[in-house]
Amino acid sequence: MHILHTHYHRRMASTEIEALVQQLARLPGLGPRSARRAVLHLMKKRESSFAPLLAALQTVSERLVTCGICGNVDTSDPCAICADPRRDPRSLCVVEEVSDLWALDKSRLFPGKYHVLGGRLSALEGVRPQDLSIDALVARVAAGGIDEVVLAMNATLEGQTTAHYLAERLEGYPVRLTQLAHGLPVGGELDYLDEGTLAQALRARRPVS
Amino acid sequence: MHILHTHYHRRMASTEIEALVQQLARLPGLGPRSARRAVLHLMKKRESSFAPLLAALQTVSERLVTCGICGNVDTSDPCAICADPRRDPRSLCVVEEVSDLWALDKSRLFPGKYHVLGGRLSALEGVRPQDLSIDALVARVAAGGIDEVVLAMNATLEGQTTAHYLAERLEGYPVRLTQLAHGLPVGGELDYLDEGTLAQALRARRPVS
Repeated sequence: MHILHTHYHRRMASTEIEALVQQLARLPGLGPRSARRAVLHLMKKRESSFAPLLAALQTVSERLVTCGICGNVDTSDPCAICADPRRDPRSLCVVEEVSDLWALDKSRLFPGKYHVLGGRLSALEGVRPQDLSIDALVARVAAGGIDEVVLAMNATLEGQTTAHYLAERLEGYPVRLTQLAHGLPVGGELDYLDEGTLAQALRARRPVS
Repeated sequence: MHILHTHYHRRMASTEIEALVQQLARLPGLGPRSARRAVLHLMKKRESSFAPLLAALQTVSERLVTCGICGNVDTSDPCAICADPRRDPRSLCVVEEVSDLWALDKSRLFPGKYHVLGGRLSALEGVRPQDLSIDALVARVAAGGIDEVVLAMNATLEGQTTAHYLAERLEGYPVRLTQLAHGLPVGGELDYLDEGTLAQALRARRPVS
């Protein structure tokens, strides 16, 4: 075989297919290699894979809406969670982002509803209280019927700053304010944990029951 | 927090979003977890990520076509490779699948054109010569203008059976038939290679130059 490295911009597929590979490669968890494999898979399974994926994307794209009650993103307003009568309306869990809501809710451990702030307070990034859905949260609490507000912010400086700010804003309302426990993650080995986590775990130590 | 494992079928997103997660999770290299992350990413970046991906998929879906010359799948017929005047028409590389074509061509090492069989002969799966694009290959060779045909089948039993069959079918035509070398992969350690590869490497040993 006559081996030759070509130097002009040689294409092995049309620009349309290259563009699709590039778009897919930008998704988290995918790269150019897996995007290429995904496109090949789609092209091979046109009926059973490409068509249903395209239809699902189209439907979601057309109907995507931010829930007017909690700030979740769904294909209906109110969202599936706010519209669910079997969820306990007296428990409200406040999260930074929709991704945090998903992470918590798929555990199926929290029986109540949510409130999505849309970010966290950050002096560095110039995110102020009025940039987040905080007034709406206070209004929900002020409207009554809520017993507990769980501040489920990330265990970061900005997350905790946001939690403190929310605690101040919600002071005086007849609700129990709680936050997620900090400490050793399940399976965490002391040897591998950062000092911050160890300090939290030590500070919040509890009597052996 | 009042912890409660719910037992009814509780949804955290609409069925449309769940359907999209499921479709994405079926792509090679993705699973339920990364599909969920991808959907969250798309929902968050509606303008910069969701819209362009959807448009790219739509375009490719509408234009996808099998090349009438080589059997490649592209958005034009003839495909980008067959239509490229700078590729050497005297070299033809025969591969089993479009994915093999992509794997080879992204190395940019082969200066010629391709022929995609659409599979491999397999008694087990009932794939016969007439199920593959073999007559079209013979016709291309018979039409003349081709000096070398590289049989780039997979190094599997069925791939090699297919290569032998093709060699028989192309006997008598004035073309040089070659196949990819078998042996140690680059970086391969003897200790970790299977016996089959070692046997091939030993059988095809060459004088030290």
